[in-house]
Amino acid sequence: MFRYRNFPADISKKYPRGWSRAKPEWYNAPVNKFLTKLNQRIAARQTFVCVGLDADTAKMPEKFQKSAAPLLEFNKYIIDATRDYAACYKPNLAFYEMYGLAGLQALQATLRYIPEDISVILDAKRGDIGNTSRAYARAVFEEFGADAVTLAPYMGEDSITPFLEYKENYSFVLCLTSNQGAQDFQKPELYKKVAAKIQDWQTRYGNCGAVAGATHPEEIASIRALIPDAFLLIPGVGAQGGELASTVRAARNRQNSGFIINSSRGIIYAADPAAEARKLQLAINSLI
Amino acid sequence: MFRYRNFPADISKKYPRGWSRAKPEWYNAPVNKFLTKLNQRIAARQTFVCVGLDADTAKMPEKFQKSAAPLLEFNKYIIDATRDYAACYKPNLAFYEMYGLAGLQALQATLRYIPEDISVILDAKRGDIGNTSRAYARAVFEEFGADAVTLAPYMGEDSITPFLEYKENYSFVLCLTSNQGAQDFQKPELYKKVAAKIQDWQTRYGNCGAVAGATHPEEIASIRALIPDAFLLIPGVGAQGGELASTVRAARNRQNSGFIINSSRGIIYAADPAAEARKLQLAINSLI
Repeated sequence: MFRYRNFPADISKKYPRGWSRAKPEWYNAPVNKFLTKLNQRIAARQTFVCVGLDADTAKMPEKFQKSAAPLLEFNKYIIDATRDYAACYKPNLAFYEMYGLAGLQALQATLRYIPEDISVILDAKRGDIGNTSRAYARAVFEEFGADAVTLAPYMGEDSITPFLEYKENYSFVLCLTSNQGAQDFQKPELYKKVAAKIQDWQTRYGNCGAVAGATHPEEIASIRALIPDAFLLIPGVGAQGGELASTVRAARNRQNSGFIINSSRGIIYAADPAAEARKLQLAINSLI
Repeated sequence: MFRYRNFPADISKKYPRGWSRAKPEWYNAPVNKFLTKLNQRIAARQTFVCVGLDADTAKMPEKFQKSAAPLLEFNKYIIDATRDYAACYKPNLAFYEMYGLAGLQALQATLRYIPEDISVILDAKRGDIGNTSRAYARAVFEEFGADAVTLAPYMGEDSITPFLEYKENYSFVLCLTSNQGAQDFQKPELYKKVAAKIQDWQTRYGNCGAVAGATHPEEIASIRALIPDAFLLIPGVGAQGGELASTVRAARNRQNSGFIINSSRGIIYAADPAAEARKLQLAINSLI
């Protein structure tokens, strides 16, 4: 066998930062099922559309309001209509909790109805002290079986890491939101501080992205500069009125991916939800 | 009938800022049932103790673990033991959500078991865009029937006001928390900005207080300076280790009231929860 003369037995001692760079914590972690499913879906179907399942019985067509299980029947209709165009689904827990236990049962049934190869982000905006966040993480990932979750960052690192310890799952931390209230605390500086922390968590855990509202394309660019690779979840297209073109250009990462654009009311209350989802899919694809 | 000469028919036109000062929005609002119950309880029982109902089946005594309804049976035992010393109860939703629908059923039954004259704060740390916060507010105040709630402020005003519009209920907004992660974003300045906003909401709605962690007595004083009258909910005594004396002195308002001190694990997992609650009650009372 050919050998270089004087080649060290343990090369990492000679070139500790060159030949054998330190691996981040997540390098040998279990496969992240959210990223796997989402990346496959983006590659196979060319779609960056996240469909928000925020059903409100007062707004849905009358035939669903009259059915025995309005939330579930309406969600089934939306999922059937949009499954070819959806990169993922995002039910917001609030719209199920507002109907009490019956609403949460409808959510569970909805989650079971979503095809296994389409990932689910449970929009929960949770966050509490460490041992309490562990309980929330268990609720979201084990009880509901979501692939990903949204989190609120106000309580800092120990409120986030219990979620990141679920290596198969993914967490989107609120960074800049699309509502009027984003002015109150997030702007002009806090969201950048939060973005830097999200990148720190992403570097250490490999499963942490950001929520970045589409009403602020120039700020999305500054978030992308701080978080070069991780996924951005972008609400605020449609009902909340953001500019699609500038948003997509600011949000994509170096692989021309790494973002999903959510539309809830714009799709689910459209006369033709399938056409609306397809329209958003094509509009995004025309920009990248 | 006696009349002053030249007395104007509509005095408010002559003395618009004197005789008939503008009333804040909440002046004619329905009675706030949380404040009514809590103030009566503080006056009648001389207690500022909030008992945190954060039952974890892994930590409760074995006889409850083996019962058919561990969460409910354990909570009944805690409520029976502490009802004479509790100013209010505070279940944290996370510890019920972690057991799925069965956990939330246990929470509903627990809420029904709490005596009607003791108010309940549902520790939920919710907050989302306006129409979604409205759904959460309905869940917390109508579905669960809580008297008060805790909220996360990251998303700003329109995420908070849907809760404040429930005039009979009360909202505690996270200001400074008792965990390590409070260093990440809240300190050194953000919590003061949040405190100023809370005071603004309190002035306009009359039913908004703050969560102020007991691990930071000097910061509680700065919060109290910004929020002179509203209630402060103070976690972090006991398991999280805050200093009681300096906390109480910093937290009380000009009426020597306006605060409640929460203890969860310190009371519910004590060998004698009644004695532990009584001890905290007397320790606080000895300081005011």
